Amino acid sequence: MSELPRTMARQLAGLVGEDVRLCGWVEAVVEDGDAPVLVLRDPTGFAVLRPDRGDGQLVAEIRSLRRESAVEAEGRVQPLPEPAVDLLAAARTSTAGSEGVVLQRLRVVGAAVKDVPISEATPIDERLDRRFLELRRPPNRLIFDVQTTVEHAMREVWRRERFVELHSPKFRPTPNKSGSELFTVDYFGRKAYLAQSPQFYKQMAMASGLDRIFEIGPVFRANPLVTSRHDTEFTSVDVEMSWIESHHDVMGFEERWLRHVLEVVQATHGDDIARWFGAEVTVPEVPFPRLHMADAHKILDAAGHRVKGKKEGDLDAEGERLVARHVLRELGHEFVFVTDYPEWIRPYYHMRAADDPTRTRSFDLLWKGLEVTTGAQREHRPDVLAAQASARGVPLGPIDFYLEFFRYGCPPHGGFGLGLTRFLMSLLDVDDVRQVTYLHRGPTRITP
Amino acid sequence: MSELPRTMARQLAGLVGEDVRLCGWVEAVVEDGDAPVLVLRDPTGFAVLRPDRGDGQLVAEIRSLRRESAVEAEGRVQPLPEPAVDLLAAARTSTAGSEGVVLQRLRVVGAAVKDVPISEATPIDERLDRRFLELRRPPNRLIFDVQTTVEHAMREVWRRERFVELHSPKFRPTPNKSGSELFTVDYFGRKAYLAQSPQFYKQMAMASGLDRIFEIGPVFRANPLVTSRHDTEFTSVDVEMSWIESHHDVMGFEERWLRHVLEVVQATHGDDIARWFGAEVTVPEVPFPRLHMADAHKILDAAGHRVKGKKEGDLDAEGERLVARHVLRELGHEFVFVTDYPEWIRPYYHMRAADDPTRTRSFDLLWKGLEVTTGAQREHRPDVLAAQASARGVPLGPIDFYLEFFRYGCPPHGGFGLGLTRFLMSLLDVDDVRQVTYLHRGPTRITP
Repeated sequence: MSELPRTMARQLAGLVGEDVRLCGWVEAVVEDGDAPVLVLRDPTGFAVLRPDRGDGQLVAEIRSLRRESAVEAEGRVQPLPEPAVDLLAAARTSTAGSEGVVLQRLRVVGAAVKDVPISEATPIDERLDRRFLELRRPPNRLIFDVQTTVEHAMREVWRRERFVELHSPKFRPTPNKSGSELFTVDYFGRKAYLAQSPQFYKQMAMASGLDRIFEIGPVFRANPLVTSRHDTEFTSVDVEMSWIESHHDVMGFEERWLRHVLEVVQATHGDDIARWFGAEVTVPEVPFPRLHMADAHKILDAAGHRVKGKKEGDLDAEGERLVARHVLRELGHEFVFVTDYPEWIRPYYHMRAADDPTRTRSFDLLWKGLEVTTGAQREHRPDVLAAQASARGVPLGPIDFYLEFFRYGCPPHGGFGLGLTRFLMSLLDVDDVRQVTYLHRGPTRITP
Repeated sequence: MSELPRTMARQLAGLVGEDVRLCGWVEAVVEDGDAPVLVLRDPTGFAVLRPDRGDGQLVAEIRSLRRESAVEAEGRVQPLPEPAVDLLAAARTSTAGSEGVVLQRLRVVGAAVKDVPISEATPIDERLDRRFLELRRPPNRLIFDVQTTVEHAMREVWRRERFVELHSPKFRPTPNKSGSELFTVDYFGRKAYLAQSPQFYKQMAMASGLDRIFEIGPVFRANPLVTSRHDTEFTSVDVEMSWIESHHDVMGFEERWLRHVLEVVQATHGDDIARWFGAEVTVPEVPFPRLHMADAHKILDAAGHRVKGKKEGDLDAEGERLVARHVLRELGHEFVFVTDYPEWIRPYYHMRAADDPTRTRSFDLLWKGLEVTTGAQREHRPDVLAAQASARGVPLGPIDFYLEFFRYGCPPHGGFGLGLTRFLMSLLDVDDVRQVTYLHRGPTRITP
């Protein structure tokens, strides 16, 4: 082909009369009168290409195209006649115009040798087997454009506020947390474990004087549940910050950070998200509502909902939905921080409230009723931390490396973790984590 | 303390006469005449704090401080008298001025309860055990500031050029590459493997129509060597791009990307890197020199160096150094792409040169004689790919999921991988990977 730079489908508007080179996939070949029309798809949308009148060879080439072949096409941009506009109307992205291209040259650079065997009606497991084909559809493509924008906007705030990017090791010498849901690796004849979260290592960064850090990376959970909400591997967004007065400083950071992220997402993808997912992106007011757990339970009492069993004093999924609905109705806010969880449902390393040792300086963030974040101020005083671990029955030997972090001068600190796919589910009003994950991993799913 | 916002040590210049609040660590307490001087360290540098004349309680508090305790301090900025300037001269970061603070209030927020047991003279293994203390030293802190800047600058280019951020799964169903150096995970009673690279999944993204992607994430290599150059887990920077004509398009991207990164690093950290590491950051000219492997071997022949054994036709470490030295001498360039590696030392999925099937469309990038990148155009035609695999004795069954990626229309594509710590080693002229890794993992090192 020529040396023309690549033009994207979405750029055709405004280029009428100019020669362009498009690169994309054969979405369809449709007969229109006595000539075929090629509908080409690229990451930005669709383009309609017609052969030059009387070019018999080009007509034959277009008719011989198999759907989904990768092609390069050159031609001149011109306004579309009405029938072609109809043709595109269903498939088109929101900002595509009504320009077409008079095709002059076509090159198949990656021929499809088989027909695509899946459609939207195909059962989820078969679609996951052929995930690379499913990802070609515009709404799926959009998910990963949005994800890219979300992460970039997060990083803009971190960069501005002097956070350091961390890459903590995924191999751990000892089980963390309760020892359950843990993957074991054969590590040169001994056992190693895959990190379920970077918790200890992001706290180590505070003991290292890195002050404020973030990490976006994989975490691993050997959860045996096969549901549309669970996975064995996901991308965790972690933040830890020093020199705080309480967990309220951590919430203060998180809310201005999320506000910026949603501002950028709305401006960049708001229309496309509405079109493909029917979801409205709202830029939240700051501060977000903060609701003490005791007050959250008053709301549940009034609604006649009682959290029972081992979740007592906590919120169950239904409780989270009810609290969120109450906040949305009373305060008009999609977000709510539920704060000060009872100590028995939080890890031993959460700091206790100064005036009530049964409460922790902790919070969850609910968005549209879904928990997207868990955060807290950590206990940084080594004697208090050891006492809290002992009271919980945690043996001090295996966590001595962790207690060491706090024995040489460690500032007060706290942080939170946010599941990237959870966040995307709330943002796009999608209820299946497999849809917003590039390649899902679950107890019965480890391919492709 | 008061509601004053935090001031960083490096900001004191220009604040003479103003009240500030500093947060940091006790670097030292030194007697100066009849009063103690507190030297405080924060992420940006050092500050000298003297008690208000006659404030006996503050004098006693300063004298009781244990080194490395985390403290908050309030006071008024004033010019430093000469002796304090001397005191700071050795330790200070390059841009610290000669301002001090008259201390009015001091709060110990994280007391050190033990003395720091390591110094620069401590053997490496003990220092790695106490890595969080070693990281407090300014040059180590600088490494992670530079890393943060490097990644951010990389992302600026990706963002500008419409790359999508990918998070590919680290659990793999089958061994990749040769099956050697592979970590095995107990995955619900079956075996899974940890990804040694995102190779297959970044190519899948090309088959998915994501067009251009990047990923920064961990990769895992069960290499049993214990050296200062090897690790079992490191951060890999991966790029893959579609619609290329050849591997030269990939090199074209990489060189303008690295030029931007080094421009930003030089502007942001050039002085500090010179001061702490004695390394000069040079912004490279583009294009980088490109040297066909056959010509690289002519240079080695002329230098009397012969690459023997299984590396024949390849470059060994000494060969890389000699080629890089030649290019630096003849062309004045720190970088050189060595291109068109023989097919027998490249994986089966590298595309062969159209005019010479014994050569691949591949390259390595050497920087100061160290290989920092391996890249190539990939073979995207499924029949050619299968034939190349078979010729290499690779059974087609286990890679059929991979061959599928190319059967439904896949554009020509290529990419590269860059080791983040390798890059930092070249940038900072450091020869021990453990120094530039947050927490090193090796065959005998999995703690803390």
